[in-house]
Amino acid sequence: MDIPPRQAELTDELKAALTSVSTATITSQLQRRGYQNCFLSGLKPLNEGQSMIGYAHTLRYVPARPDLAGLLGSNAQREAAESIEPGEVLIVEARGETDAGTIGDIYAMRAKYRGCVGVITDGSLRDTPAIKALGMPVYHQSSHAAVLGRLHTPLSHQVPIACAGVTVMPGDIIVGDGEGAVVIPAAMLEEIAAASTKMEIAEEFAIERVAEGAPTTGYFPLADENRPEFEAWLAKRNS
Amino acid sequence: MDIPPRQAELTDELKAALTSVSTATITSQLQRRGYQNCFLSGLKPLNEGQSMIGYAHTLRYVPARPDLAGLLGSNAQREAAESIEPGEVLIVEARGETDAGTIGDIYAMRAKYRGCVGVITDGSLRDTPAIKALGMPVYHQSSHAAVLGRLHTPLSHQVPIACAGVTVMPGDIIVGDGEGAVVIPAAMLEEIAAASTKMEIAEEFAIERVAEGAPTTGYFPLADENRPEFEAWLAKRNS
Amino acid sequence: MDIPPRQAELTDELKAALTSVSTATITSQLQRRGYQNCFLSGLKPLNEGQSMIGYAHTLRYVPARPDLAGLLGSNAQREAAESIEPGEVLIVEARGETDAGTIGDIYAMRAKYRGCVGVITDGSLRDTPAIKALGMPVYHQSSHAAVLGRLHTPLSHQVPIACAGVTVMPGDIIVGDGEGAVVIPAAMLEEIAAASTKMEIAEEFAIERVAEGAPTTGYFPLADENRPEFEAWLAKRNS
Amino acid sequence: MDIPPRQAELTDELKAALTSVSTATITSQLQRRGYQNCFLSGLKPLNEGQSMIGYAHTLRYVPARPDLAGLLGSNAQREAAESIEPGEVLIVEARGETDAGTIGDIYAMRAKYRGCVGVITDGSLRDTPAIKALGMPVYHQSSHAAVLGRLHTPLSHQVPIACAGVTVMPGDIIVGDGEGAVVIPAAMLEEIAAASTKMEIAEEFAIERVAEGAPTTGYFPLADENRPEFEAWLAKRNS
Amino acid sequence: MDIPPRQAELTDELKAALTSVSTATITSQLQRRGYQNCFLSGLKPLNEGQSMIGYAHTLRYVPARPDLAGLLGSNAQREAAESIEPGEVLIVEARGETDAGTIGDIYAMRAKYRGCVGVITDGSLRDTPAIKALGMPVYHQSSHAAVLGRLHTPLSHQVPIACAGVTVMPGDIIVGDGEGAVVIPAAMLEEIAAASTKMEIAEEFAIERVAEGAPTTGYFPLADENRPEFEAWLAKRNS
Amino acid sequence: MDIPPRQAELTDELKAALTSVSTATITSQLQRRGYQNCFLSGLKPLNEGQSMIGYAHTLRYVPARPDLAGLLGSNAQREAAESIEPGEVLIVEARGETDAGTIGDIYAMRAKYRGCVGVITDGSLRDTPAIKALGMPVYHQSSHAAVLGRLHTPLSHQVPIACAGVTVMPGDIIVGDGEGAVVIPAAMLEEIAAASTKMEIAEEFAIERVAEGAPTTGYFPLADENRPEFEAWLAKRNS
Repeated sequence: MDIPPRQAELTDELKAALTSVSTATITSQLQRRGYQNCFLSGLKPLNEGQSMIGYAHTLRYVPARPDLAGLLGSNAQREAAESIEPGEVLIVEARGETDAGTIGDIYAMRAKYRGCVGVITDGSLRDTPAIKALGMPVYHQSSHAAVLGRLHTPLSHQVPIACAGVTVMPGDIIVGDGEGAVVIPAAMLEEIAAASTKMEIAEEFAIERVAEGAPTTGYFPLADENRPEFEAWLAKRNS
Repeated sequence: MDIPPRQAELTDELKAALTSVSTATITSQLQRRGYQNCFLSGLKPLNEGQSMIGYAHTLRYVPARPDLAGLLGSNAQREAAESIEPGEVLIVEARGETDAGTIGDIYAMRAKYRGCVGVITDGSLRDTPAIKALGMPVYHQSSHAAVLGRLHTPLSHQVPIACAGVTVMPGDIIVGDGEGAVVIPAAMLEEIAAASTKMEIAEEFAIERVAEGAPTTGYFPLADENRPEFEAWLAKRNS
Repeated sequence: MDIPPRQAELTDELKAALTSVSTATITSQLQRRGYQNCFLSGLKPLNEGQSMIGYAHTLRYVPARPDLAGLLGSNAQREAAESIEPGEVLIVEARGETDAGTIGDIYAMRAKYRGCVGVITDGSLRDTPAIKALGMPVYHQSSHAAVLGRLHTPLSHQVPIACAGVTVMPGDIIVGDGEGAVVIPAAMLEEIAAASTKMEIAEEFAIERVAEGAPTTGYFPLADENRPEFEAWLAKRNS
Repeated sequence: MDIPPRQAELTDELKAALTSVSTATITSQLQRRGYQNCFLSGLKPLNEGQSMIGYAHTLRYVPARPDLAGLLGSNAQREAAESIEPGEVLIVEARGETDAGTIGDIYAMRAKYRGCVGVITDGSLRDTPAIKALGMPVYHQSSHAAVLGRLHTPLSHQVPIACAGVTVMPGDIIVGDGEGAVVIPAAMLEEIAAASTKMEIAEEFAIERVAEGAPTTGYFPLADENRPEFEAWLAKRNS
Repeated sequence: MDIPPRQAELTDELKAALTSVSTATITSQLQRRGYQNCFLSGLKPLNEGQSMIGYAHTLRYVPARPDLAGLLGSNAQREAAESIEPGEVLIVEARGETDAGTIGDIYAMRAKYRGCVGVITDGSLRDTPAIKALGMPVYHQSSHAAVLGRLHTPLSHQVPIACAGVTVMPGDIIVGDGEGAVVIPAAMLEEIAAASTKMEIAEEFAIERVAEGAPTTGYFPLADENRPEFEAWLAKRNS
Repeated sequence: MDIPPRQAELTDELKAALTSVSTATITSQLQRRGYQNCFLSGLKPLNEGQSMIGYAHTLRYVPARPDLAGLLGSNAQREAAESIEPGEVLIVEARGETDAGTIGDIYAMRAKYRGCVGVITDGSLRDTPAIKALGMPVYHQSSHAAVLGRLHTPLSHQVPIACAGVTVMPGDIIVGDGEGAVVIPAAMLEEIAAASTKMEIAEEFAIERVAEGAPTTGYFPLADENRPEFEAWLAKRNS
């Protein structure tokens, strides 16, 4: 399968929309459309309160095998760091193996210099303190100081990968917040952004009411009999 | 089995006693009385330095099954959030499954509004940043943005549950600190509070001596030959 | 096997060298020399930004067995805390079992009083908030309030142990930073300190160049054609 | 929730239909109707080539707790063995914990004497050789000689349970073959039996063709252009 | 700790007693005396219907470390195989790691030639088909063809070990049947043999009654009112 | 990376050589040459005593994603079954996920009809009894009746995969016996066949001597002083 050219354009408006909603809302909208496996399971944010949005730049590792570098004739990890484009998130398939590092500080710095807006690995980060100091959003499973050759050989980049239970295609949109990160298939970008914004407003209304003492029943989800009340609230909010 | 009416009254004195000792001390006293499975294994506090005490309000999830809502005729999650009483802790059995959310921000807000004093789940929290902002004590295994239907259907509330390796009966007392949370069977409340206070004082003495350079031998545990010294210290402490 | 007397002397210079490099660098140098299993897998620092260096003082737990205390005639945990020497790190083999505490606050305090410079367990810490307040560097897998007898009986100390995937001999050197901790076999101390310092300088150069926009290619690792540039940089740095 | 009276009647015809198809076929038909969690994950047959069909008689264990027997006033394990009806399968929720037995030989014998047609546990069997000698179909995760009190206390029977990732209601239909066992919600019994029979016939046709050298394409699944060929085959088969 | 000389003598009578009862019965008797961790968890018999009894000859592996062979000056695996005595069982601590072999065919053959009566490993067997052909009882967790150096270095033999959740001292008695294997502390040998025999007879009586249609109540466990019936049965059985 | 044309020819002689030695021997020879990850970890043979050799025909699954079939425009599973060549082994990457089937009976039959000589999956087999009846060698982790869409979408075939901890390239040689299966990189075929044959003969000698009562020391591995004895034995064996 050849990866088609980028299928989605992350405009400023879409970025604003998607970073103003939670990954919980986005995930919920994807689930309603049949995407059950879209939130990266078991990864945690490196920095408190971090937020992230960008295009997936994928990188695939396979179990270490000494003849692979020769067969491949290149180092996919370096290629990824040296070819990543502004606005992209470097996302690594490490088969959930945590007993060796995957991305270290120098490749992370180089990617950041080139405009990379975040790093995700379902394995371990290496040089965690130095990467934390970079201030770039990172989602990872664990940390480990061993070099990747202990477990992994880089195979290829910008190919479909499986990361933390989610299939990621190059060019998919990835959004992260304090809970974790979610993958939006490129073709779903506009639909999900619109639906998430709408849902978040409905929840804002519910939250206001619940904060005032209303029961969840009738407000979460919104019941038909409360729709006029919601519409009035919405009109006022948007005015 | 019908759940009998609340068997223990958490007076202000008992609250003060149990929150002035550590969960380690309480767990130790329960173990001495044969309760080996009382500390919730593998759950971590959401907020640094949080402390919690309350009655268990239990909620049970089972694996997702599409006909269950119809068979049950009600949503036990909503019922729990809408019926929880002041001073109760909402505690969820999620079979340790972390790949979907269990409690989200709106139900957590509602429970808090009704007087709920804490939330515990052996699965994943959803809307973690929003729940963290509520400031309520929470113990959980992980975080996940997927709605609970990905894995779970709520079955019933205020029934016996298994959470993080502990059997919890509605009305049991739950105490939490920076280490985690422990379940005190309702009928053991007064005995455990008294014994824990006593043990903590003995450890306070040991800690003072060790801080001054005494060996642990003879002070931890207290040896008979040091009992007079302890009694003198205790008399002074209480004067 | 008898443990020979201490085989390495941790001079102030060696301490300075090893705490000025990362555990990632040390691990990498050990891996190049065939030591694939030297970084403690899956343990996390208790305190943000902690740093640690010392000699291993090992302690071994085995599954709880009621006749063992009688057969042994002593408590290896107490013996370790009461015999630990200044500059040593107390490191515990708990078979990765986390459902009970291993080291609690009083033994940790005593060890610290005697000059212990850090605690490591591949099981759970007990009295986590109190130990955190001690300010001593700690690496652990989890926290649990149950006393150790729920799972463990101390067997012996200052014997070879397996901790978090690493074989540790008494007197080995342990270095910790924000990523985790690594075990340096005593006989490798000087070689690793020298090689790590040298590697860290080469990486410092690469990091400077990458921060200025250079590609990783040619600088990480250093290519022959850039060696003169590096040598010039190094001469300037050291002047 | 009260468990309603038995909702499905397992006639001889339905039994014959469901034991002449594979659990793979039944599971597939349930999945098409939205039941994704119906096959018991990770359990293996005790006896080579065993086959089983019956009504679920559920039994729930929770983590061992010394006051529970007193609170409950009865032993749900004994009650289950002494009240099980002919044609029922005893199915146990043991939270997937395998380090203690759940069902032993004497209760299994008693259940068999009363007409029980199979035993399922997502924990460990106890007295495995003796139970194997009974010749009753059994699905289990592992074997362990410890008595159940090491980990479990029986809580109740004929209540909804979670077993091996599946929610089971008393009176559901359970079918087992050499692959494992699947739970059919009682209300789905006739629909699933009919659909499974139909699907199995279509697969019988595909298998015949593939065995003769046909490609899977067009036969698995059946393409419209091959429907006449299938109809002719079917007419001949049924004549 | 020095290992004292063998503390228990496995007479022919004791052997006969212990191999005529099940490991479930022995485990149950050990549990009643406070030995909760005595049955080896998660190990399976290599040969259908195998039975085993002998003295523990322990062997300990630690994570692979290249300098260890030099430090130790000997190969504990070879030493174990070359020094094992008739009637001993070779039992290996492999930390539950299964991704490399532990015991292979040649060492197993040698041990068998010397009179070894069984092999146990909580890791993987290597050369499984060849070892199966030897016909010696084996309990293991898995099989793997890699040589042990991939994960392990042998450290010592005839020392206390932790195997499959059980602490084993050299000279302990190990009994195996179709369910698995159990470790009897040497000092408990006679007491456990006697108690197990007695319990097995009581269960034989219960089984007979249950097979005839009696309920478990009153017979399992034996109620006082049925004791005369049991005594009569026993008198007849022993006559 | 394009997969180059087949790089190794599995002649009858090489087949004979590799099936007359054990996977343990082959794995050992690969390890000596730096291939630490070559034996498929945790997979078990479906049929007692099965033996297998062939070229790898790889198939890769990724986590289920509803838009993938459309993006790909083909079904890699069907393509693999319909294009597999005589003498090939179908080997599936299922990320070790066992809660759904991967290969079922009809695709297995088709592959066998086309000359496929074995099936390997690091996930679950589906239709296990029917596949067992085919008599084809199979290595798998578990069995599950759910259709693969519960967890997986086929992505591509004849691409590099990671299966059970091993990187497999299309055209690699796979050998299986009663212990499991090992992957030989195509370029290593002749070297490994020769070295394995040689090693197996040396072990045959050692086994004979050990069977006669010789110690392993000096014979396993062969010591220089016993080389003349070995050479004499070898001359006689080959005459």
